[in-house]
Amino acid sequence: MENIEKIRHSLAHLLASAVLEFYPKTKLGIGPTIENGFYYDMEIKDLKPEDLEKIEARMKELIKENQKFIGKKVSKTVAKKLFKNQPYKLELIKDLPEKTVGIYQNGNFLDLCKGGHVANTKEIDPNSFKLTKIAGAYWRGSEKNKMLTRIYGVAFSTEKELMTYLKMLQEAEKRDHRVLGQKLDLFTFSELVGPGLPLWTPKGTVIREELEKFAKQTEEKWGYQRITTPHIAKKILFETSGHLPYYKDDIFPGMNIDDDRYYLKAMNCPITMAMFGQKPHSYREFPVRLAEYGTVYRYELSGVVTGLLRTRGFTQNDAHIFCREDQLEEEFINVMKLHQYYYRDVFEIKDYYVRLSLRDKSKKEKFGGNDAIWKKAESIIRSAVKKSGVPFKEALGEASFYGPKADYLIKSSIGKEETASTNQIDFIMPKRFGLSYVGQDGKQHDVVAIHRAPLGSHERFIAFLIEHFAGAFPLWLSPVQIAVIPISEKHFDYAKKVAEILRAQNFRLEIMDQNETLGKKIREAEMQKVPYLLIVGNK
Amino acid sequence: MENIEKIRHSLAHLLASAVLEFYPKTKLGIGPTIENGFYYDMEIKDLKPEDLEKIEARMKELIKENQKFIGKKVSKTVAKKLFKNQPYKLELIKDLPEKTVGIYQNGNFLDLCKGGHVANTKEIDPNSFKLTKIAGAYWRGSEKNKMLTRIYGVAFSTEKELMTYLKMLQEAEKRDHRVLGQKLDLFTFSELVGPGLPLWTPKGTVIREELEKFAKQTEEKWGYQRITTPHIAKKILFETSGHLPYYKDDIFPGMNIDDDRYYLKAMNCPITMAMFGQKPHSYREFPVRLAEYGTVYRYELSGVVTGLLRTRGFTQNDAHIFCREDQLEEEFINVMKLHQYYYRDVFEIKDYYVRLSLRDKSKKEKFGGNDAIWKKAESIIRSAVKKSGVPFKEALGEASFYGPKADYLIKSSIGKEETASTNQIDFIMPKRFGLSYVGQDGKQHDVVAIHRAPLGSHERFIAFLIEHFAGAFPLWLSPVQIAVIPISEKHFDYAKKVAEILRAQNFRLEIMDQNETLGKKIREAEMQKVPYLLIVGNK
Repeated sequence: MENIEKIRHSLAHLLASAVLEFYPKTKLGIGPTIENGFYYDMEIKDLKPEDLEKIEARMKELIKENQKFIGKKVSKTVAKKLFKNQPYKLELIKDLPEKTVGIYQNGNFLDLCKGGHVANTKEIDPNSFKLTKIAGAYWRGSEKNKMLTRIYGVAFSTEKELMTYLKMLQEAEKRDHRVLGQKLDLFTFSELVGPGLPLWTPKGTVIREELEKFAKQTEEKWGYQRITTPHIAKKILFETSGHLPYYKDDIFPGMNIDDDRYYLKAMNCPITMAMFGQKPHSYREFPVRLAEYGTVYRYELSGVVTGLLRTRGFTQNDAHIFCREDQLEEEFINVMKLHQYYYRDVFEIKDYYVRLSLRDKSKKEKFGGNDAIWKKAESIIRSAVKKSGVPFKEALGEASFYGPKADYLIKSSIGKEETASTNQIDFIMPKRFGLSYVGQDGKQHDVVAIHRAPLGSHERFIAFLIEHFAGAFPLWLSPVQIAVIPISEKHFDYAKKVAEILRAQNFRLEIMDQNETLGKKIREAEMQKVPYLLIVGNK
Repeated sequence: MENIEKIRHSLAHLLASAVLEFYPKTKLGIGPTIENGFYYDMEIKDLKPEDLEKIEARMKELIKENQKFIGKKVSKTVAKKLFKNQPYKLELIKDLPEKTVGIYQNGNFLDLCKGGHVANTKEIDPNSFKLTKIAGAYWRGSEKNKMLTRIYGVAFSTEKELMTYLKMLQEAEKRDHRVLGQKLDLFTFSELVGPGLPLWTPKGTVIREELEKFAKQTEEKWGYQRITTPHIAKKILFETSGHLPYYKDDIFPGMNIDDDRYYLKAMNCPITMAMFGQKPHSYREFPVRLAEYGTVYRYELSGVVTGLLRTRGFTQNDAHIFCREDQLEEEFINVMKLHQYYYRDVFEIKDYYVRLSLRDKSKKEKFGGNDAIWKKAESIIRSAVKKSGVPFKEALGEASFYGPKADYLIKSSIGKEETASTNQIDFIMPKRFGLSYVGQDGKQHDVVAIHRAPLGSHERFIAFLIEHFAGAFPLWLSPVQIAVIPISEKHFDYAKKVAEILRAQNFRLEIMDQNETLGKKIREAEMQKVPYLLIVGNK
């Protein structure tokens, strides 16, 4: 275990310890570490956010006591006695499969625990952690159980790291795409339409369409062709692709029409494969790169849909590359080069890496195909990723059912990480659709495919861009590029003339002819993050 | 009745008369007039298309006999005796509500008929009609009845008109968008996806996207803003708009999600109205013109879907204009001007007119609102249509449930007519969505709306354009603008260089580097209707 993990885990114990001192009747749940910190769930009455201050102060004192963490194994019978006043701990003890359980003591505080702490609290810098917030959380995550109170803390090795992180959090809150999206009037949701189904306003649609136009132009240069396919298709299409039954729970319920069942597409690949299979193919025509900004619908629990990051409908920067096996690696490297162009050169994203998602052999039911195919696909994708020079981490069991993936994780200008894009090498689905070509030898060969989406979905990527740019988009993406601000009513007509000239040059602009003071109009334009303000007056 | 209708009706009798002479056992169904001609349904064995020739020849002889058409009324009892060998006629007699029925005699032939003939066959020019084809047709249009044979004929007042029409038919057949669509590889259908759901190939997608780009640029200049909305929404949205229950049969079956029922949108207006209603509005901001190339899905019987003209999914050049009542007429005139620009100036469509679709007061259940609203809406739309100067015909009962319509009917270069666009004035739906604005008087007022779609749907409009241009699109719409044809293999490299230069200028081109003769490559490019061929050789 990394040292910072030990510190975070130890802080969770200290948190519970301090809480019990103030509120002795508290019933403790569990207290694990999480990304950047830790939390502890507990049954406690009327805890207010302002109470965290005194708890945090007490934790700092406990740290300074140089408490030792001492662990041992005891029988379940002994453990039950030790935790006789802690019903949640008793439930945990009961459910543990082992005969003995681990307990850890620091100071007066005893916890049920497998271990992983610092030896002594003096290893913890008392200024490198902070209790951040409280929230509700169901015991063991189930709605059927009691709602407990969760206290969150963040912790780092040094005070400096903590400060950097807290500043990033504060900045992230200001940049939250849900907040900025509303303030800048980019998208909205309607009760009449449904959760997770964004309605893009005129300003938001400008961003979508500029992004789409740019991607189309770029991909045309990179040899892609565009297709257009419907949003619904017969059940047999998704059975052929294998998405039914693999992705059953993610697909919207079907619609019975004539003697068939139709589904909203949850992904674009099956329909693209079907389309490619409509005609015979020859080795001469490859690679064929078929792209579509395709809108797909996936069922998400209404409780988890949030802003643009988790939606029920989204539009993917999708394409499928059909080629011969000997072209796969080069094509995949090209896909990675395209990512680099988009991320580094266009959007100035400095920090990104690839998660190389591989098959977990022990979970055969989750993956199609056979060992030989997976070995080949994984070897090609690993080689391509290595050659691309982009840093990568391997992740076992995270592959798609039809092939290994290279997922791009990008960090915004303030370091917030998002999965932006997912790309697969696929020997399996083309075979399921019977896609073949006539080789130079005159015989039929299997077609192989790459699934790719460098700009992910409009929804996720624009959410990222809003936060990355804090709403101050580069000129070409700005919904309003120029605010024409007449100093007073006398200058309205002149402002209109100026606007007309600029509009003829295809600038997007707004004339601010409200009866407001100049100062107020300038502030409004600045709040709307308009790149250029053109103040029009006598001089 | 117009004289040509009398001629067509008389020819139907002559057709039955001639058929009975050749095939005395024939059982006759009905023989009405239709657009451009007539048909007769009959139970007849093994009639072949080539048999039409002798029947037509015999009809001409009958015409020259100067037969008189003599009609009278007889009791049902008498009629039943007269038609005792004609079971279909007996069925018709039985079902007629009147006590007496009409019969008409010409030569030896007696038919059950209400009348409407020429007085004497000498009024018919024997060279101005033609039997064109035979087809199957269920007795009384029901699948449960026997399939009869239908003989079609076309007829005009003069031989010249007939010849013009037959030539148009022949030309129309060559231009059929289904035939050309396949030959030019513009769209396809897949068994795996379903009937009426076109898959647009790369070449077809170029046409869609060029058209869309052009419409977007044009509409931006005309003051439209674009929005983007999802393809599904809750039941309550369509109940609020009134499409449920009015359009129930046209909407795809719902999907149950959480505790709601979701529907694929069959029209864009409800979601646009909901979106407009998300914010308060002031009189100052009108008119607001919200446009979307929205893809909608409508249930059509699988038997009637055909090519791009009758599909289950289509993408509309849609927009909704929200305004004050005093702006309605001017806005509607502007919409009509936009039509004129598109049709006359851009696509050089010379022949079009408006069908002004009004409410039928006697069918109150088909229309929302009240008399006062309809009177106002119909008066505004009629005035706008009159002022626009476009020829128009009124059509009672053809209005939408929420308002009167101006439908544009356009004729292709060979005179084939299509309904291209439908536009409504709407006082009703905005009210259902509670859309209001704060007027200059500080009070709330009702918003009114215009629905408009000058380029109809991509599907219908591109089908029209394919036939209008016989596949030879203007340069800006051509999927391939330049075919670069190297004379021989020696010139392949040079062809590629030329292609690169042209591609950098954003031309869409194809290098024809197949190992074929120059002549064959030229023929292929011409068949593909590529506007420019660039033949690359030593000279």
